[in-house]
Amino acid sequence: MPRTRTAPRTASSRVTEARRLHIPIALRWGDLDAFNHVNNTSMLKLLEEARVRAFWKAAPGEDAPETAVLESGIDQGVLTLIARQEIEYFAPVPYQRRPLEVQMWFGKIGGSSVEVCYEVFNDPASAERILYARSTAVVVLVDAVSGRPTRVNDEMREIWGRYVGDPLVYAHRR
Amino acid sequence: MPRTRTAPRTASSRVTEARRLHIPIALRWGDLDAFNHVNNTSMLKLLEEARVRAFWKAAPGEDAPETAVLESGIDQGVLTLIARQEIEYFAPVPYQRRPLEVQMWFGKIGGSSVEVCYEVFNDPASAERILYARSTAVVVLVDAVSGRPTRVNDEMREIWGRYVGDPLVYAHRR
Amino acid sequence: MPRTRTAPRTASSRVTEARRLHIPIALRWGDLDAFNHVNNTSMLKLLEEARVRAFWKAAPGEDAPETAVLESGIDQGVLTLIARQEIEYFAPVPYQRRPLEVQMWFGKIGGSSVEVCYEVFNDPASAERILYARSTAVVVLVDAVSGRPTRVNDEMREIWGRYVGDPLVYAHRR
Amino acid sequence: MPRTRTAPRTASSRVTEARRLHIPIALRWGDLDAFNHVNNTSMLKLLEEARVRAFWKAAPGEDAPETAVLESGIDQGVLTLIARQEIEYFAPVPYQRRPLEVQMWFGKIGGSSVEVCYEVFNDPASAERILYARSTAVVVLVDAVSGRPTRVNDEMREIWGRYVGDPLVYAHRR
Repeated sequence: MPRTRTAPRTASSRVTEARRLHIPIALRWGDLDAFNHVNNTSMLKLLEEARVRAFWKAAPGEDAPETAVLESGIDQGVLTLIARQEIEYFAPVPYQRRPLEVQMWFGKIGGSSVEVCYEVFNDPASAERILYARSTAVVVLVDAVSGRPTRVNDEMREIWGRYVGDPLVYAHRR
Repeated sequence: MPRTRTAPRTASSRVTEARRLHIPIALRWGDLDAFNHVNNTSMLKLLEEARVRAFWKAAPGEDAPETAVLESGIDQGVLTLIARQEIEYFAPVPYQRRPLEVQMWFGKIGGSSVEVCYEVFNDPASAERILYARSTAVVVLVDAVSGRPTRVNDEMREIWGRYVGDPLVYAHRR
Repeated sequence: MPRTRTAPRTASSRVTEARRLHIPIALRWGDLDAFNHVNNTSMLKLLEEARVRAFWKAAPGEDAPETAVLESGIDQGVLTLIARQEIEYFAPVPYQRRPLEVQMWFGKIGGSSVEVCYEVFNDPASAERILYARSTAVVVLVDAVSGRPTRVNDEMREIWGRYVGDPLVYAHRR
Repeated sequence: MPRTRTAPRTASSRVTEARRLHIPIALRWGDLDAFNHVNNTSMLKLLEEARVRAFWKAAPGEDAPETAVLESGIDQGVLTLIARQEIEYFAPVPYQRRPLEVQMWFGKIGGSSVEVCYEVFNDPASAERILYARSTAVVVLVDAVSGRPTRVNDEMREIWGRYVGDPLVYAHRR
């Protein structure tokens, strides 16, 4: 997480402002590494948790966004497996008590996979908004029993479809 | 880590067979997640450890490859920060006692950053060789005290230069 | 985290009901292991985070309990090191969106160390209250620069002193 | 992991020198926390891995000690759950390339649980031997399907019985 990359000029990115999910995810001091900032793999752990909270069905009585419709589990239902992931880090993340805000939307909804786009910011109430990272994950839905890919069903397609936007563009790709 | 992606046909990839580092990294049962295979973020943890063992200077008496020349530390020396990372997963990784083999080479050696390429296989003594994942990380060298990028020095350039090969090509990018 | 131990009969333990801290700590799905419940070492990670939030000084503008007076850091201030820890698990912890509630108090405040007692419950708003675990940690304060133990200062002694209670008793010790 | 506790005078502890298992476990740089030494919860992760390698049945072709007889798995076989754990830390653990050596033996073999004792040292080839930590874990065997405790069977009892020694005594308990 270099202090040296040209960070995007403003926190508001150039991608189309589609409807986004805003998932607060609390840091832990244990996410830091010996360089005293959030380890780059911990950041992916935070994105994983945001994904679970955004898309997996909640237990009765739990709060969850409308997109939380995926029945996930190893004994039954669906496994969500990461096929590919791309991430760019713009600023080192110090420990902070307020949750980070993970903004999420779909870059694409395919037959049995989806492309999830993420932008990770500090807490919206902060004096200065900071964009820490951007990431894209291709998530494949796999039937827990058969181990085979399973279709994005009609309910997912309808609800998740409300959160489709432009996919992220990675400036530093080559 | 889908069972569903078209895996590269053979373990021997199409990239130029440059001199590669072969770093054995032991799995831990704790790398598994509730889906009972190695979590996708754990895989990045394994790559991190391979990178440390390949490139960071060893303590007196420790074994290390010739490429282990980077003096790393938070109090002095150099921090190695990940600016971007890209990874594709080809097969789920079960727990196994034999270490995985992380093959590494440089896709590019820049002024104050390097592009590290990885291919992760099971143990070379296994009956059937499996390519689990491919990844590319852009690593920036930052002076621990000033926080500013620092040059890849002559020693690194000379020794690391022996391990430069074609960068990885990602088939599933879009 | 056996389903088999005799759990304490009621959530309200027999220790003197001293003033306790109540720190909500969110689970992550990544805290689960391949047995599909929160790994026993993840539980200690949750206690670590509760300790940091309870006792370490907050940054300007952050919310924290009155006990958060310890200036912690590797460059200056104080390192808090665990000298010993004891933990008993009463019930397996499933993933849940609502934060767990970590209740904390001091079993003892010594010269340069403190004994921290923990009881970990599910969310207070839950229909049925569950005590998941009890733990005691001996935490030593060490000067970050000299590496030597440092005194519990007057401010800590005064404020932390309001949260001293009976130490936990471990029924299954032998 | 204080630098301040009275460490046991010699690495050879006072417990009866029963036959012990010696399991090498590699550190990862990622086991360090922001205090730049192995985090106390990472130490428990190392003990977990030592336990898995010592007691869980290996796959065909894998090397394992004779004690590796337990069929573990969430779908069938046995879950090993930690009911209680106690640990004392004697010295901070820096990152090192050589594996730590986890010495293990049984303090007790019960009906459906065992008490596992650990001493964690640096690599036996090191110039100076260092005892980093001692721990005791009570592990309960639970049937994966029924969720009920299951008996230590005759094979376990016979083979594990060769590694029974005096349980650890904790000097700093109170």
